[in-house]
Amino acid sequence: MLTWMLVFVPAAIAVELLAAEQHLLVFLAAALAIVPLAGWLGRATEQLAERSGEGVGGLLNATFGNATELIIALSAMRAGLHDVVKASLVGSIVGNILLVLGAAMLAGGLRHQEQQYNASAARSQATLLTLATIALILPAAYSAVVASRAPDGLQALSLYISLLLLLVYGLFLVYSLVTHKNLFAGDPNAPHTPHATPLWSKAKALLVLGTATVMIAWISEILVGAIEPSAHQLGLSNLFVGVFIVAILGNAAEHSSAISAAMKNRMDLSLAIAIGSSVQVALFVAPVLVLASYFVGGVPMDLAFSGGLVLSVLLAVLITGQVAGDGRSDWLKGVQLLAVYLILGLAYFFTPDVLPS
Amino acid sequence: MLTWMLVFVPAAIAVELLAAEQHLLVFLAAALAIVPLAGWLGRATEQLAERSGEGVGGLLNATFGNATELIIALSAMRAGLHDVVKASLVGSIVGNILLVLGAAMLAGGLRHQEQQYNASAARSQATLLTLATIALILPAAYSAVVASRAPDGLQALSLYISLLLLLVYGLFLVYSLVTHKNLFAGDPNAPHTPHATPLWSKAKALLVLGTATVMIAWISEILVGAIEPSAHQLGLSNLFVGVFIVAILGNAAEHSSAISAAMKNRMDLSLAIAIGSSVQVALFVAPVLVLASYFVGGVPMDLAFSGGLVLSVLLAVLITGQVAGDGRSDWLKGVQLLAVYLILGLAYFFTPDVLPS
Amino acid sequence: MLTWMLVFVPAAIAVELLAAEQHLLVFLAAALAIVPLAGWLGRATEQLAERSGEGVGGLLNATFGNATELIIALSAMRAGLHDVVKASLVGSIVGNILLVLGAAMLAGGLRHQEQQYNASAARSQATLLTLATIALILPAAYSAVVASRAPDGLQALSLYISLLLLLVYGLFLVYSLVTHKNLFAGDPNAPHTPHATPLWSKAKALLVLGTATVMIAWISEILVGAIEPSAHQLGLSNLFVGVFIVAILGNAAEHSSAISAAMKNRMDLSLAIAIGSSVQVALFVAPVLVLASYFVGGVPMDLAFSGGLVLSVLLAVLITGQVAGDGRSDWLKGVQLLAVYLILGLAYFFTPDVLPS
Repeated sequence: MLTWMLVFVPAAIAVELLAAEQHLLVFLAAALAIVPLAGWLGRATEQLAERSGEGVGGLLNATFGNATELIIALSAMRAGLHDVVKASLVGSIVGNILLVLGAAMLAGGLRHQEQQYNASAARSQATLLTLATIALILPAAYSAVVASRAPDGLQALSLYISLLLLLVYGLFLVYSLVTHKNLFAGDPNAPHTPHATPLWSKAKALLVLGTATVMIAWISEILVGAIEPSAHQLGLSNLFVGVFIVAILGNAAEHSSAISAAMKNRMDLSLAIAIGSSVQVALFVAPVLVLASYFVGGVPMDLAFSGGLVLSVLLAVLITGQVAGDGRSDWLKGVQLLAVYLILGLAYFFTPDVLPS
Repeated sequence: MLTWMLVFVPAAIAVELLAAEQHLLVFLAAALAIVPLAGWLGRATEQLAERSGEGVGGLLNATFGNATELIIALSAMRAGLHDVVKASLVGSIVGNILLVLGAAMLAGGLRHQEQQYNASAARSQATLLTLATIALILPAAYSAVVASRAPDGLQALSLYISLLLLLVYGLFLVYSLVTHKNLFAGDPNAPHTPHATPLWSKAKALLVLGTATVMIAWISEILVGAIEPSAHQLGLSNLFVGVFIVAILGNAAEHSSAISAAMKNRMDLSLAIAIGSSVQVALFVAPVLVLASYFVGGVPMDLAFSGGLVLSVLLAVLITGQVAGDGRSDWLKGVQLLAVYLILGLAYFFTPDVLPS
Repeated sequence: MLTWMLVFVPAAIAVELLAAEQHLLVFLAAALAIVPLAGWLGRATEQLAERSGEGVGGLLNATFGNATELIIALSAMRAGLHDVVKASLVGSIVGNILLVLGAAMLAGGLRHQEQQYNASAARSQATLLTLATIALILPAAYSAVVASRAPDGLQALSLYISLLLLLVYGLFLVYSLVTHKNLFAGDPNAPHTPHATPLWSKAKALLVLGTATVMIAWISEILVGAIEPSAHQLGLSNLFVGVFIVAILGNAAEHSSAISAAMKNRMDLSLAIAIGSSVQVALFVAPVLVLASYFVGGVPMDLAFSGGLVLSVLLAVLITGQVAGDGRSDWLKGVQLLAVYLILGLAYFFTPDVLPS
């Protein structure tokens, strides 16, 4: 399936070169091309991680796991679309815990009456999301109340909070890979990850990793250029496209892995993929983008997301904490998360653009 | 007691016919008349439910359990009092989890050092309340920020969210009555419900159900007509009357059942009544009213509750989730819930009318 | 250490008399003088408590445990600095659950892989904090939306809520000292508190208590007088000084006790000190100050804290509830709490004064 979808890569490039004014077509082709590339990137990362010993492997996964989101966001930032960057970050955080986790719990719950997982690991990740949410709420509140009186404060506040989030993320890696890795081990009797054999050679994995990264960077430039005109053509807002469409693209691979793990009753793995991705976006990708914005040129990006985006993260994190805190899941929990995702989607769908960011 | 209170039914009708300008008297008589009627309606529903087999019975309870609230709200809606409808919905949600559950935990806790209940069932209902709260927050935020730019969006958003809530409620019934009914079974050794014998005949139950429904509809018209002038006469705001007085009337029956169950140490039943009623109002009664408003005539009702009402629900749901999530209760938990109810009551008491809805 | 620091007491008085215009020096000397006095006050209270039998002792601890905060706040109130009072109350609530508890969990977690504590006791205190947070949110919301139409309402609302909070606090004492004291007992095999022998005589304890109280009252007058000019001189806002500097002073003693208890793996005691202090400030000190403001002269103080302060409490309580609800702690939990404290600190650091209170 992933291999087959690679045909969209040349297709996207071809359409961009030959019919760039067909924005919707460009957008669709680029969007569909991103999915298999993200899949290959993820698989190469995993292969490298497996061959690298536990610690380095975990680090690799934790750093490149959301490389696709990062590359797309960098493209959007270079194009000056800070609002799209922020929307896609929020879409990625919210999508992983509501759509991916919801779908996984639903799919797993349809097969199994009740599924168990390590509540401590889930809670520690949920708490990291709460921490990240607080790190979004305060700059937004600052921006609303204080920024007019202290215009430079917001940028400095965003910078320091970003550094702090990266520090916390680093400490979380120490926690999950070194001092408390037993919490994240899951069931030791579980069958190993499906594509464990045959292993790619390390060289091949590195080659795939490099190629996929370059291609994603290229395609994401095409994608980002087509977002606004396509949204316009579809009658959708940039915000909706950013939160719900762009964000889903980079997560497609996580999506299928989390669901497949849940169906095999490996809920620890499923939660680690879904909540872990949200944690990674919130505590690693977002602050890296703030730091990167100082080098990419143009105005540096701050952490002051619009009220609606912050509210979305807050509500999603709130219900995820409630759903994932007790170490058990069933199909209704999946339905509840998906319902919140749909409600958020409806609210954004009916929101026209020209919001104050 | 209930039987005796039925004298208020003819009394209310008499006062309305003979001394309609005595608004306070009309209001009091109608309010006191609703209580026994709601009790009879509830008892008839239960009797029918018991005779109908588990699945259909559960469905009956879940549908007619808050029939009184629904009928009062329909009367208020027909009178164009959307604000009273919304206030009484919020009052009913908040009252069931703070006042009814708080009183039950307090009464139970005064008799028993510590009481146990199924935490999974309580958590799944608390999560439904969080979901419903999100479904109230987003239209309110939309109404505050977006609605001026997209005037039709609010109505469409309310309609779709209502349909989604009804779908989730339906799925919750499947969950609690079919796939996971064991979670809600409570202690199998517990004595059966008190009025199990002698059973009314099905015909009698249907007759009572019909009569009570008709009478409630009649009395609620009288009640609704007297709300505004009575509130004025008492120096209370419509909002206070809606949230704290009207809402308590329809819940009087639940109130006594939940307390009596708690005192008999049947906390699973007590929570099912209290939290379950809130869930029912939020996920069934409220969306049904939005849909009904398209047929009743006048302007359709939206889901954009005023900020104060949404805040009340949010705070009540937040503390209920914290209190009811660990499978044990004691008297202090009851005190905590009641204290929040009192604080909310004080805030509304000191709030004069003419709030932007 | 504490004894040695007492030299700052005469130093503070000397600087105030001889060089009162050296505001920063006055502030520093007074701040450093408060720490050992608060320590002696705490120790004398404990000694009296131990000699008084369990019930009375618990009551003494619960009443005088935050005497320092109370005295500083009374001084600030007499000086008309309601904003500093409110800021230091919030700083004390937030500091105890984020800084003190965070440092304790971190220090304990660096020694012990995982530490256990009674989740029920922690949850009941966390719920009290949620209750107190609700008691702060509603007057703030009232002040923002309603107060212009009902100017007297805010004062009355604050008064009634304060009385209610004191009642709940009293009931909590009954709960923790009488009906459910077993929940708060901790490990019965734990070694007794370190300074159990040699006991001071009751007379000596009373003498220390009295002297320390008088001295704290004196020094806190000096401290309060120097806050605004020192803040100005340091380029800090009054708000930052109130929330993060004044608040830390009175808590220094709790700070070291909570950390030392955690390192000895006595997490129940550590949580009781940290969360318990926050509960005491929120449910006892704050309402007592509101009541006291009627007698101290000037405008009575209300409970309408500024939006930023209320938000800080809400976020701190939210994450504390999540962190402390499952009966286990490790070093990452400590890091998470400290990170939130730092983020709050950054936000206040970059906030200049002249905020609407």
